[in-house]
Amino acid sequence: MTHIEKLQAIRAQMKEQNIDAYIIPSSDPHISEYLPEYYKCIAWTSGFTGSAGTLVITQQFAGLWTDSRYFVQANDQLAHTGFELVKLRVQHMPEYVEWIASQFTAGGTVAFDGNLASLAVANAIQSTLASIGFTINGHVDLLSSIWKNRPALPTEKAYTLPVSTTGESTAAKLTKVRALVKQKRATCHIISSLDDIAWLLNIRGTDVPCNPVTLSFVYLDAEKVTLFIDATKLDEATKQELQGFGIHLADYTALPQAIAAIPAGSTILLDPKRTCFATYDNVPSTVTIKEDMNPSTLLKAIKNEVEIAHERKAMIHDGVAMTKFFKWIEENVGTGTLTELNIAEHLLGLRAAQPGFKDISFNTIAGYKDHGALPHYSADEKSSYDLKTEGLLLVDSGGQYETGTTDITRVVALGTPTQEEKDDYTIVLRGTIEGSMAIYPKGSRGYQIDAITRRPIWATLRNYGHGTGHGVGFFLNVHEGPHVFNPTPTDIAIEQGMITSIEPGLYREGKHGIRIENLVLAKDLEGNQFGDFMDFETLTICYIATDLVDKKWLEQPHIDWLNQYNEWVYNSLKDFLSTEEATWLRNKTKAI
Amino acid sequence: MTHIEKLQAIRAQMKEQNIDAYIIPSSDPHISEYLPEYYKCIAWTSGFTGSAGTLVITQQFAGLWTDSRYFVQANDQLAHTGFELVKLRVQHMPEYVEWIASQFTAGGTVAFDGNLASLAVANAIQSTLASIGFTINGHVDLLSSIWKNRPALPTEKAYTLPVSTTGESTAAKLTKVRALVKQKRATCHIISSLDDIAWLLNIRGTDVPCNPVTLSFVYLDAEKVTLFIDATKLDEATKQELQGFGIHLADYTALPQAIAAIPAGSTILLDPKRTCFATYDNVPSTVTIKEDMNPSTLLKAIKNEVEIAHERKAMIHDGVAMTKFFKWIEENVGTGTLTELNIAEHLLGLRAAQPGFKDISFNTIAGYKDHGALPHYSADEKSSYDLKTEGLLLVDSGGQYETGTTDITRVVALGTPTQEEKDDYTIVLRGTIEGSMAIYPKGSRGYQIDAITRRPIWATLRNYGHGTGHGVGFFLNVHEGPHVFNPTPTDIAIEQGMITSIEPGLYREGKHGIRIENLVLAKDLEGNQFGDFMDFETLTICYIATDLVDKKWLEQPHIDWLNQYNEWVYNSLKDFLSTEEATWLRNKTKAI
Repeated sequence: MTHIEKLQAIRAQMKEQNIDAYIIPSSDPHISEYLPEYYKCIAWTSGFTGSAGTLVITQQFAGLWTDSRYFVQANDQLAHTGFELVKLRVQHMPEYVEWIASQFTAGGTVAFDGNLASLAVANAIQSTLASIGFTINGHVDLLSSIWKNRPALPTEKAYTLPVSTTGESTAAKLTKVRALVKQKRATCHIISSLDDIAWLLNIRGTDVPCNPVTLSFVYLDAEKVTLFIDATKLDEATKQELQGFGIHLADYTALPQAIAAIPAGSTILLDPKRTCFATYDNVPSTVTIKEDMNPSTLLKAIKNEVEIAHERKAMIHDGVAMTKFFKWIEENVGTGTLTELNIAEHLLGLRAAQPGFKDISFNTIAGYKDHGALPHYSADEKSSYDLKTEGLLLVDSGGQYETGTTDITRVVALGTPTQEEKDDYTIVLRGTIEGSMAIYPKGSRGYQIDAITRRPIWATLRNYGHGTGHGVGFFLNVHEGPHVFNPTPTDIAIEQGMITSIEPGLYREGKHGIRIENLVLAKDLEGNQFGDFMDFETLTICYIATDLVDKKWLEQPHIDWLNQYNEWVYNSLKDFLSTEEATWLRNKTKAI
Repeated sequence: MTHIEKLQAIRAQMKEQNIDAYIIPSSDPHISEYLPEYYKCIAWTSGFTGSAGTLVITQQFAGLWTDSRYFVQANDQLAHTGFELVKLRVQHMPEYVEWIASQFTAGGTVAFDGNLASLAVANAIQSTLASIGFTINGHVDLLSSIWKNRPALPTEKAYTLPVSTTGESTAAKLTKVRALVKQKRATCHIISSLDDIAWLLNIRGTDVPCNPVTLSFVYLDAEKVTLFIDATKLDEATKQELQGFGIHLADYTALPQAIAAIPAGSTILLDPKRTCFATYDNVPSTVTIKEDMNPSTLLKAIKNEVEIAHERKAMIHDGVAMTKFFKWIEENVGTGTLTELNIAEHLLGLRAAQPGFKDISFNTIAGYKDHGALPHYSADEKSSYDLKTEGLLLVDSGGQYETGTTDITRVVALGTPTQEEKDDYTIVLRGTIEGSMAIYPKGSRGYQIDAITRRPIWATLRNYGHGTGHGVGFFLNVHEGPHVFNPTPTDIAIEQGMITSIEPGLYREGKHGIRIENLVLAKDLEGNQFGDFMDFETLTICYIATDLVDKKWLEQPHIDWLNQYNEWVYNSLKDFLSTEEATWLRNKTKAI
């Protein structure tokens, strides 16, 4: 079936069912960012494989609303599909809702599959359109009947992690979550987000590429905890371990019945951003819904000492792989055999040789020259450049280790850099350094760190279109909330133990892209009469190239930071490298 | 009647009416910050005269919830009143609501006068307490019956400003507001906020000290505009001018009847932050309420070219007064006759001698030595210090001129400063400079400018407890929204034409206070492939003392900024000063 035929089939059903606009969000019942094949509805319908977007189909128009990260990719992938790219002005905003309102001034019927939309998205649709005469139907699945050979739901094995890895038992975590559910004046709670479940039950899986999670739901109240999961994923020992914590097992598909059975008079806590509309809509009218963030989300974000100690080890493994990688690049770029694709393969091999490696944490972005200017570039056979002894190479990659998740971006010059390349590189580096050096009062928000990181870049009339940093899980999703460093007014305090990336960038279309990314740990620093202050400890251990630095953009504190960082990288890694590798790294980490 | 007796009288009524908790917010039906005497309910009830606070009275407890700016003042003023100070953790948060919830675990009746609370405050009370068994009554006035000799509502004259002053006619402003009301899908609109009305109708008054506004409401729909005002405030010419714009006049007290008469099926736009609960609650159930910011608020904040040109002139007048003031201080501090009180009087005289002066824009804060450490200090006969040839003097003051509103803070050393004074001063100055030099993309928010201003101060483990800046009106309120530079996630973009203060500070209890405040104008700077950028033009024209600067805290760009600023101050003012004054200023503005 071509995309054009799929679109025709959807439109035919829309006509039959009197639907004026059909919305396909890019999500699943767990509001995941990375989807199992079964839930890749946008890719199947339109061919667009980016991780964020929304399709809206009317009889006259079919569009993909996505943000600037995906403009180039979407333009390519949507050619001849019948779908057109609609450029979002603001990332993640449901701007298509206003578009629908403008298209049907006399109202109409708007439908979507409530399993694919968060309550927050459904509310945004409802609140704008219902008041101006639209009928909203969140129970319409137009894909299942036409999607032949749809991939099955994943059935990969799941397993538990020991307390020696996670630092906190499932029993202790359940106690904390129950206390917070009670504090929010609710009597029961459903968790749909897979990383929250993974954290709470110290369970991991391989259902979703790059994210070590397992498809499931959790229901809990004061007496009972039920894990809804395909039982074939669990071996007997794991089942017994979970049951030992008082956890009941039920089938993955049994959640709706369980929701219907919630006793009248209960108050259920649901996270509107991490619960799908279908789950919300199943709640009996005799049950009060309390909307609030999943308590596990904040608990999970604040890493305990055991997790942090493990994460520090993972950083050494990852730094060793990265060091070997860049040495290999430098030594082989002259042979003419390196490509964007095969260096990503080689990097995977180097990571895989490290202890505890399980998977990459996202698809490696190896962007050479102008490909680096596409922040979410993913090379394929057609696009992959051959590497030469010139230009800049940007590599953004990460690993899932049993002891932690990594995410790092470095840029190296494969030949003699131009002045423009050095200017852009040093300006970004100053942003990374000022963000990393930031001292901030307890209670500060991510938007403040974002502004501090961008300030020196803005001062040169430059900017980047993505966030400055995202939370990172502990052997979990590489994008993890609730905290984030970006310009949006996200009202979440930075707390000791949170791990976040700092990754400013600059993208010069047709020329090069620069991004310098480390993971940092938020820590309490000291208190005095002016308040309590915090700072960051940089966790990522990989040299920052200095041949691209032009010191005219830096003040002495920045140069000191860079020299101390590179010295620390050398000292942290040298015992894990061969003599030859250590000598190579010693040279890369010389003070400037 | 003593405060104790008032409290007894209120409690007696509470018993009679079965009220468990009575809330007295510090506001009026216009949600004003500065209140006419008639509405100073908190001052009358408890003796506390600060501009922000809330009283909560139960049979067991009577408390004033206020923020750190007022802790010292409240402690003093509440002594022997029966009221206790409750320290707010977060400014402007209704933390008393949680307290009430904790006091009456089985629920109860909570009452307040809906004329004194914004809809937002009423909603906060309602949303927390109603769900846990409280009855809320927003129509209870327990003060009127016991408040003998209550001051009358003000009856001061109001007058209009010509377009040559305001830059835009009332007709044009009405057209814009009506278009925005329609765009927000409403059919009518009530404006309660006095500065919005003053802007919309180009009208000013003297009902409220420091704020050139007149007590009134406006109702408007597509056909009609009604101004609710005590008609004795307007002379015949002004009445005719307003009627010429199609504005109907009705009595100030006639609003409730007008609301009751809104046709069924209408949609009324009300600003929940700037409309009182009583007004909201008067709306017939057949009318849909659309809650959104008053359209006039954003229009008013973006100054037009005429306003900006006038404001620049007002800054010269104000700078001349400030220059004469500091010269006078320097020449007279040795005589032992200066006090915090009489220097404020002298400054008023200097401002009053300037063209177009109408009033001060807020009560002058002249804080010497440790009094400077109280950010909202107001000297009285008892507290006023004598000035000596030592220590720091902080003066925060402003004027209302027919051509603009000013607000400026400077700190000067009256003797030889200590190293700690110089350190604190220079660190604050670096904050003022970095905020003023900021370059930022179009669409940036005030919290980003706040973070940029604080960063160098945080870096020294110092901080200040107030916002970095507030919007300032054009010959209107010195505090004007919707934009603000503070750490809260206020989602309002900075737009070209907005005037805001930049005023970081440091307060060393028992020693000194430092704040260096200028008003700045947001301006479009330039666009390129990375986006459109903006910066600030500093409007305030008054030298910044350099004898308190220790250059070790500054980088060269800060020193350049300071020297250029002082040079510009000298050149802007010298023609308006006597030769002797100009010579004195030349010396103060020498490059460092």
